[in-house]
Amino acid sequence: MQFTIRRDAETPIYRQIVDQVRAGIATGDLPRGARLPPVRQLALDCGVTRLTVHSAYAELQAEGLLESYVGRGTFVASTAETLPAPSSKEPIAWEGRSIVASLMRHGDRPGIISFVQAFPARETYPVSELEAALHEAMADPDVLGYGHTQGDPLLRAEVATLLAQRGITASPDDLLVTAGAQQAIDLILRAFTAPGDVLLVEEPTYPGVLELATRSGQRVVGIPNDDGALRIHALEAACLAERARLLYLVPTFSNPTGRSLDSPSREAVLRIAARHDLLVVEDDTYGFMPFDRPASPALRSLDVDGRVLTITSFSKMLAPALRLGTVVARGDLLASLATVKGASDLVCSAVLQRALALYLRAGHLPGHSRRTAALYAERRDALLGALERHMPGCTWMLPEGGLNLWLTLPGGIDEAGVANDALAAGVAVTPGAAFFPRRRPHGSFRLSYGALDPDRIEEGIALLARVLQDHLRMQGRVAPFGAGGPLV
Amino acid sequence: MQFTIRRDAETPIYRQIVDQVRAGIATGDLPRGARLPPVRQLALDCGVTRLTVHSAYAELQAEGLLESYVGRGTFVASTAETLPAPSSKEPIAWEGRSIVASLMRHGDRPGIISFVQAFPARETYPVSELEAALHEAMADPDVLGYGHTQGDPLLRAEVATLLAQRGITASPDDLLVTAGAQQAIDLILRAFTAPGDVLLVEEPTYPGVLELATRSGQRVVGIPNDDGALRIHALEAACLAERARLLYLVPTFSNPTGRSLDSPSREAVLRIAARHDLLVVEDDTYGFMPFDRPASPALRSLDVDGRVLTITSFSKMLAPALRLGTVVARGDLLASLATVKGASDLVCSAVLQRALALYLRAGHLPGHSRRTAALYAERRDALLGALERHMPGCTWMLPEGGLNLWLTLPGGIDEAGVANDALAAGVAVTPGAAFFPRRRPHGSFRLSYGALDPDRIEEGIALLARVLQDHLRMQGRVAPFGAGGPLV
Repeated sequence: MQFTIRRDAETPIYRQIVDQVRAGIATGDLPRGARLPPVRQLALDCGVTRLTVHSAYAELQAEGLLESYVGRGTFVASTAETLPAPSSKEPIAWEGRSIVASLMRHGDRPGIISFVQAFPARETYPVSELEAALHEAMADPDVLGYGHTQGDPLLRAEVATLLAQRGITASPDDLLVTAGAQQAIDLILRAFTAPGDVLLVEEPTYPGVLELATRSGQRVVGIPNDDGALRIHALEAACLAERARLLYLVPTFSNPTGRSLDSPSREAVLRIAARHDLLVVEDDTYGFMPFDRPASPALRSLDVDGRVLTITSFSKMLAPALRLGTVVARGDLLASLATVKGASDLVCSAVLQRALALYLRAGHLPGHSRRTAALYAERRDALLGALERHMPGCTWMLPEGGLNLWLTLPGGIDEAGVANDALAAGVAVTPGAAFFPRRRPHGSFRLSYGALDPDRIEEGIALLARVLQDHLRMQGRVAPFGAGGPLV
Repeated sequence: MQFTIRRDAETPIYRQIVDQVRAGIATGDLPRGARLPPVRQLALDCGVTRLTVHSAYAELQAEGLLESYVGRGTFVASTAETLPAPSSKEPIAWEGRSIVASLMRHGDRPGIISFVQAFPARETYPVSELEAALHEAMADPDVLGYGHTQGDPLLRAEVATLLAQRGITASPDDLLVTAGAQQAIDLILRAFTAPGDVLLVEEPTYPGVLELATRSGQRVVGIPNDDGALRIHALEAACLAERARLLYLVPTFSNPTGRSLDSPSREAVLRIAARHDLLVVEDDTYGFMPFDRPASPALRSLDVDGRVLTITSFSKMLAPALRLGTVVARGDLLASLATVKGASDLVCSAVLQRALALYLRAGHLPGHSRRTAALYAERRDALLGALERHMPGCTWMLPEGGLNLWLTLPGGIDEAGVANDALAAGVAVTPGAAFFPRRRPHGSFRLSYGALDPDRIEEGIALLARVLQDHLRMQGRVAPFGAGGPLV
């Protein structure tokens, strides 16, 4: 492989080397196990310092693309990813950078039973209460103006009160109103990270954060989450190896697993965050949506030095079209976030903010939450029943809240292949790869079931099971129906 | 000055040098005219290649912070900005990166007559029509869901029809719905530029674009706009000297001047954009708000190869709380923008989009536009009258549309000083520096008058005039009242 260094480019030379190696691996020009030129040699060839080449190799090694052995040299890692070979069938664009857009798109196809989007059920939208709140809000024409960058003071006061249910003590001044959780994550990344920074996430995690981190040139390091037990040693090791600034978690009713982080993990996260001066982003989108038992208090309730930023969203628990969420953060952090909010889109809609504030003040939320929890629990149970009846050789986690279930296929089954064939058969699921920083397949699916009634759930899982049976049969394996079971 | 190079840092070494010189200039450690170490010497001291130092100096020179003279060396430029000395009075935080947030904040102080924000008049908000539209929209509960990333098809169809009035031929597929013009600008910069890229803007320009460009590490190069005549030679020269990718303009009823780009400039912009492969961002926020004569057709109406992206906003012409605008763009560009929109905040509020679509379909806009144009023309005339009666030795441009007027102070008057004293006296104006990439004072103010009734305008200008008189008197100059006049 030939390296081409442009000295007049704005891109630093070490970055040019990194980019060219990465491109070589992706295209197969540098296959797994290929030997890279020695540092000294490449420095001489390119007319750069050895330090420059060394920096480039070190970065690629940290990403897992290269491996170095003392005395032997530097090689493309045996686990480095190359571009997938083009599929003969019409492939689903799960890969690439626009995974969020893909998620939004694929479930929209007419006639498809979609487990793809973590949508709430349309029949739960509190139409008449919100309309009454909008009517009341518009009695003051100022709500059609810009309002405050930080958000409507009335809404912030109502949310501050609501957060007490999550164990969070916050004043209205501690809150910034955002366009849902996705914008909250975006603002946090824009305010507190720079390209090249390391972002720590649990694995599996919410794809929206991976999309943003990739777009802004950050390196994402995954910390395995084994059904609520975060691998603390891996977190500690990552903090020692990388100068990470942020750790992103969905500690309560995780997206994609519906399971919560256990107490020892919560305490360990805060301990390690303090030791390594990490900010912890707590995405509490599902924290108000428990099924059987109350949710664990928010991670922030244990936070003594203001390093946890907690995101709340009204998209799932009330209605996505509100486009409203909040971030609780320490004063200095909140000021930075508000500045980025102003630059991004000035403000959230004042009229929607006021309507939500009036809805909350009228006391509608508790009844709504009870009704929706019952509905989603019924759908979860329908899903669990369908999985037990139909899914051959699979395991799954029992969701404790939220809208998602994590299904693991029998070993050796190609998740993308099943997902593609399932789509052709009329059912859409999200392949597990979408939830991992490296986008490697993990033989898993996320099933989002909130927007499907029990009959559609049954029908969809039966279809999915037939596709999986076909795949097992193609491999010469036959698993009996009903052979799987819940992991927990 | 001592340079500290960290070899283990993720920041490239040339960037470390750039940052340290910049910081030195800002703090005064490196005063104007100070001599920098010769390239060879600094390279030796820091143990880096001469190329590295040279790259750093070249970047600083391109920014106008350093000047090099053959045989003499490299010096801090005589025009380089240092941090302003702390003022004895409570200073206004116009400086720094958060100028948009500052703009939003200062006019909010109670009792202040604020010419700061380009706010529409609250009495123009079509409250009952929008409420009826919201009621109609919510008959379909799906409008409380997520909807499409690209935006509500009904709204896109209505806006596509509306754009014909601006000479733009667009289908609904050519449109992306955004959270107002500010988000449209943000998405465009995120989709099509990288840190270090050069962004071209006219001078003076909208501060929101400067804020975003600065935050994302872009270099902004200003092209003087002399009352609608863009300095084409400067544009051509900038394109030759820099590898610019984007040119941002408000060609119709400019913010901050209220004047439009003339025909020769419009044609020249498109010619040069084609020659240098520039994308042109046409911010048409005020294009639907003419006073006396119809607005010029949009720049995009002359565009033959799809390099103009036109931004429309409903914030000024209807109501800011809608948080709705659109971008028209070529298919490939639109796809990139939609991906970034999805990553930023998923979607705009479906219910607000549908309500706006129904409002437009009901045919309410033309009557609303006639009524608001009459109101704003009356306020503009009140402002022009007040300026003629009160403002000593000033000149101003005659706004042809929009919500803003550009006022130029007598020579030698410190705009920030007058603005600070005016605030203390109860009237807020935006210093001209906010509208220039380098944030240098230009002895000017933007006066945004849309939200003030004629009596408040008269009162505010009288107050401002007294403050200016004081400043003239402090300089031993006395200008008679009424000595100024309109430029045009």
